[in-house]
Amino acid sequence: MKIGQTASFTKTITETDVYMFAGVTGDFNPVHVDAIQAKESIFGERIAHGVLSSGLISAVLGMQLPGPGAILSKLDLKFLAPVKFNDTITATVTVRELLPERKRVIMDCKATNQDGKEVVQGESVLII
Amino acid sequence: MKIGQTASFTKTITETDVYMFAGVTGDFNPVHVDAIQAKESIFGERIAHGVLSSGLISAVLGMQLPGPGAILSKLDLKFLAPVKFNDTITATVTVRELLPERKRVIMDCKATNQDGKEVVQGESVLII
Repeated sequence: MKIGQTASFTKTITETDVYMFAGVTGDFNPVHVDAIQAKESIFGERIAHGVLSSGLISAVLGMQLPGPGAILSKLDLKFLAPVKFNDTITATVTVRELLPERKRVIMDCKATNQDGKEVVQGESVLII
Repeated sequence: MKIGQTASFTKTITETDVYMFAGVTGDFNPVHVDAIQAKESIFGERIAHGVLSSGLISAVLGMQLPGPGAILSKLDLKFLAPVKFNDTITATVTVRELLPERKRVIMDCKATNQDGKEVVQGESVLII
């Protein structure tokens, strides 16, 4: 693992994903599952859960970089823009800092949509 | 909404939850879905995704306190202990600071298991 090394994962977030995510987490916020109320919200339609995009970031961290064996210790994320149904989201992680004496690595994390707009941005600390 | 006000949500996290969460997020890290490899890990068995517990916190924030209409702007979480299959997790949020001039509220967030052990701890900023 080297500073600047990067990995990513892309998934189109569907209505099915959002409804399964609501069932698993218990987050039935109307902005995610009530088409009528969501139409009256500032987003104008139902949007995906912010934490669903966090899950895509966790997927890259856990499966690719650092990959299996790494343990998620900290995840600090800002939610910058809504993810709409059928948006195609790319989660990207980049090695920012290696702390071998503490068995830690600090990763820059982001998620962007199909237009290149950042929807999530932040950092993660993993135990390796 | 007052400083110190609190809300919580409890859910037993099952194998079904973890497998659905893996499918939705793409996070098929062996520690979550490979019973053989997970047995060799430091946890000794498959564990739930840390971000699944973040989803329970997001559920309390979005549905109870501040509740519908609030927008998740920031979520900073530390993952302190593993969540095992069939653990019963309680997500609790507490109003720490009201910033009406910035239309923000800062919430303390945590998740504990059935033994009262903190598995997740952190904070969130919401736009209200």
